[in-house]
Amino acid sequence: MKALKIDLNCDMGESFGAWEMGNDLAVMDYVTSVNIACGFHAGDPGIMRKTAAAALQKGVKIGAHPGFQDLQGFGRRNMDVTAQEVYDLCLYQIGALQATVKALRGKLHHVKPHGALYNMAAKQPGLAEAIAAAVKSADSDLYLYGLSGSCLIAEAEKAGLKTFSEVFADRTYRNDGSLTPRNEPNALLENLAEIEKHVLRMADEKKVVCADGSEIKIKADTVCIHGDGKNALPIAMKLFEILI
Amino acid sequence: MKALKIDLNCDMGESFGAWEMGNDLAVMDYVTSVNIACGFHAGDPGIMRKTAAAALQKGVKIGAHPGFQDLQGFGRRNMDVTAQEVYDLCLYQIGALQATVKALRGKLHHVKPHGALYNMAAKQPGLAEAIAAAVKSADSDLYLYGLSGSCLIAEAEKAGLKTFSEVFADRTYRNDGSLTPRNEPNALLENLAEIEKHVLRMADEKKVVCADGSEIKIKADTVCIHGDGKNALPIAMKLFEILI
Amino acid sequence: MKALKIDLNCDMGESFGAWEMGNDLAVMDYVTSVNIACGFHAGDPGIMRKTAAAALQKGVKIGAHPGFQDLQGFGRRNMDVTAQEVYDLCLYQIGALQATVKALRGKLHHVKPHGALYNMAAKQPGLAEAIAAAVKSADSDLYLYGLSGSCLIAEAEKAGLKTFSEVFADRTYRNDGSLTPRNEPNALLENLAEIEKHVLRMADEKKVVCADGSEIKIKADTVCIHGDGKNALPIAMKLFEILI
Amino acid sequence: MKALKIDLNCDMGESFGAWEMGNDLAVMDYVTSVNIACGFHAGDPGIMRKTAAAALQKGVKIGAHPGFQDLQGFGRRNMDVTAQEVYDLCLYQIGALQATVKALRGKLHHVKPHGALYNMAAKQPGLAEAIAAAVKSADSDLYLYGLSGSCLIAEAEKAGLKTFSEVFADRTYRNDGSLTPRNEPNALLENLAEIEKHVLRMADEKKVVCADGSEIKIKADTVCIHGDGKNALPIAMKLFEILI
Repeated sequence: MKALKIDLNCDMGESFGAWEMGNDLAVMDYVTSVNIACGFHAGDPGIMRKTAAAALQKGVKIGAHPGFQDLQGFGRRNMDVTAQEVYDLCLYQIGALQATVKALRGKLHHVKPHGALYNMAAKQPGLAEAIAAAVKSADSDLYLYGLSGSCLIAEAEKAGLKTFSEVFADRTYRNDGSLTPRNEPNALLENLAEIEKHVLRMADEKKVVCADGSEIKIKADTVCIHGDGKNALPIAMKLFEILI
Repeated sequence: MKALKIDLNCDMGESFGAWEMGNDLAVMDYVTSVNIACGFHAGDPGIMRKTAAAALQKGVKIGAHPGFQDLQGFGRRNMDVTAQEVYDLCLYQIGALQATVKALRGKLHHVKPHGALYNMAAKQPGLAEAIAAAVKSADSDLYLYGLSGSCLIAEAEKAGLKTFSEVFADRTYRNDGSLTPRNEPNALLENLAEIEKHVLRMADEKKVVCADGSEIKIKADTVCIHGDGKNALPIAMKLFEILI
Repeated sequence: MKALKIDLNCDMGESFGAWEMGNDLAVMDYVTSVNIACGFHAGDPGIMRKTAAAALQKGVKIGAHPGFQDLQGFGRRNMDVTAQEVYDLCLYQIGALQATVKALRGKLHHVKPHGALYNMAAKQPGLAEAIAAAVKSADSDLYLYGLSGSCLIAEAEKAGLKTFSEVFADRTYRNDGSLTPRNEPNALLENLAEIEKHVLRMADEKKVVCADGSEIKIKADTVCIHGDGKNALPIAMKLFEILI
Repeated sequence: MKALKIDLNCDMGESFGAWEMGNDLAVMDYVTSVNIACGFHAGDPGIMRKTAAAALQKGVKIGAHPGFQDLQGFGRRNMDVTAQEVYDLCLYQIGALQATVKALRGKLHHVKPHGALYNMAAKQPGLAEAIAAAVKSADSDLYLYGLSGSCLIAEAEKAGLKTFSEVFADRTYRNDGSLTPRNEPNALLENLAEIEKHVLRMADEKKVVCADGSEIKIKADTVCIHGDGKNALPIAMKLFEILI
């Protein structure tokens, strides 16, 4: 694999049963790692196998993307879970994908929690610690992807795991390093040129211009692209071109 | 582990969420291997962890017990699934338990399909082959437990897997080696002395007296005890005493 | 409502959570009744409400479309259920939609079982009787939609229910009145002109030309359009034009 | 039905599939109303039918007990749902039980939300309003059971619904009328004589002695008994004897 400026990741395998979601095969050509849903919030055993097979064929890194067992809510609704429950559900889902990837003669590269679990773990050290422990239990060589500057990254490092600090291609930041909440104005970048500038600055200069105009430092090991947006493919193509 | 006449196995970890089933901790003292439900027909990630931890502590062998994704029907209702679906759901569930056991510094010993999946795979070579392939994909050192004389055992051997031919402590047989269907008279043995005699003959003489009085040969590597019957514990204690 | 030659029905509300399926709002303009999934094989409480609201606004008749609790398999996999289980799952799902429609000041018109449940009930009198009993329990004024000539229609009539005998716009028939199985050649009609001719003959002449060329009588109260095919919309538009 | 000092209610039908919970038939003789789980956090269509049939036979009032779709967590984990989602899931579950009870020639008497939904609705007016709206949509004659003094009761009254203010037989109160949280000392009453005194004071004097010794007014239309505690049956028998 060639030297990358930065990793480019996308959530995939988010179809379920008869329902399709995303444009996995097309987008997969323009990313360097994928996060595969593990059956709790999306995905099922067959979809996991097909998505992992495609990723192996295209040579992109495979990560497990565990989420809450909330299929109807797509794992996006916060749930009042204990750290033990989080450990258990992560380990279960990582193991299921691990076996699937191993059967295809591949190897899991990383774990990135999904949706509400990702967001809760960014702020709650207890849940972050539980996720890190589950990842370490599954395979201490796995990378943990988490929000740059979040407590998930901090807990992963404490646990001795390798991490990828994640930034978002289409989201703006506040001057404390957190994402501008989606319900605020200017939370989303939709213009491709803006997205390009925003991402390049994070990748090259390790800096981000915040929604309020100030400039802060940011650690950016991987950029997340949302695979289900209407512009997912052109954004992926453009970022792949400039970053990889 | 001491030399066994025969293995004594029991399904365990069949609680789910707030619902308890079975008498796992008590029965575990009188068996040599357990089959742990993997979350599709019973069990959940936390129950899997607790059951596996208890098995490791008590030194009994741990197997995965994958079943159909039919929680309400407890995996006991035949479903018209494809061989590919069976492969996928087995690999997924085996992987989930594998990671759970590995996290506890243990190792999975075997796989035994559950309920309707077990029964269908005993007769349908395509499904049996799919299960064997999934087991082999997960770890080619795993044993596959299947009904003695069934096509699941045949397909496992074809795939190069090690097998345990399973017989039942409380079920009678027909002269073709199949189990007397539960809805026929004399299908079940309920008398402890009868069960003891029946099991000893299978373990020692590799023979079974059929419901019609005839005597046939049977391969018996492991005896199944049902953990949820009211007599589960006394049966386990008696068989453990005479066999182990 | 104007006098119809024949009813034109389509399955709808088959999205689930974050996953969309079908083109409900567009197709709804060209049918006279819809069958709304009730949450077991597809649909969820919110989708049921939105679909029912759209149907009421457009003035099409609303039916409940109960199926097996097999979300991953979309209710298309046969399951070995008892008649009592079928009664229970139908009554539950019909009741859930009944309340949803009543809350919108509408009224349920019919029930049509989905997928594997529909097919099994077409051939197994015990299951057919259970469905008819559930419909009658829910509201004895409800119509039961079933495969024309099937035992579901026969059992519904025995139970005193009003029925709609259903024929398929894009499926050919065998000379015993059954559908040509999908895995046989000539099972599907894909040419719009052929479909039009096929449907008109069933609607006007109560006859169908079978796959073997012979001609048999058929009762056709309602024609089913599949909403998820790529040609769903043009087929619906054409049939609506010629039939309604 | 004879004049009651107060209604005595218990959650029931909380088994699921092969798993049993509670001692429904025994406890049912000593309560005046039951809240039947509706399949989302517990219960399934067959269990709903059997529980409703028993309640009708014993002449106790039947309520729907809708909860979050969180089977593994038994509906006890708070979930970040919208008011619209709460409206939809309540209406769906109420409708399912309504049809089940109607099929048995009975009539639903009330609705009581379960677990986390009950607790969240006691404090969040938006969710409380959504539940009240769903109940009213299903049948404006239904009573809504909610925590005495909570915003669920307030919103139900605003919506024009009849209410039952609920108090707990085995829980102590704080001087603001709220329940002492379970994780605090003195939250639970376990002594039968104490429970008897506590309940009688609420039923007769409309007063409760708080955990801090102060005495406050409380509205008590119905007393909740927990059916799954080990002392459920003796508590029910004693309260039935003194109250009914």
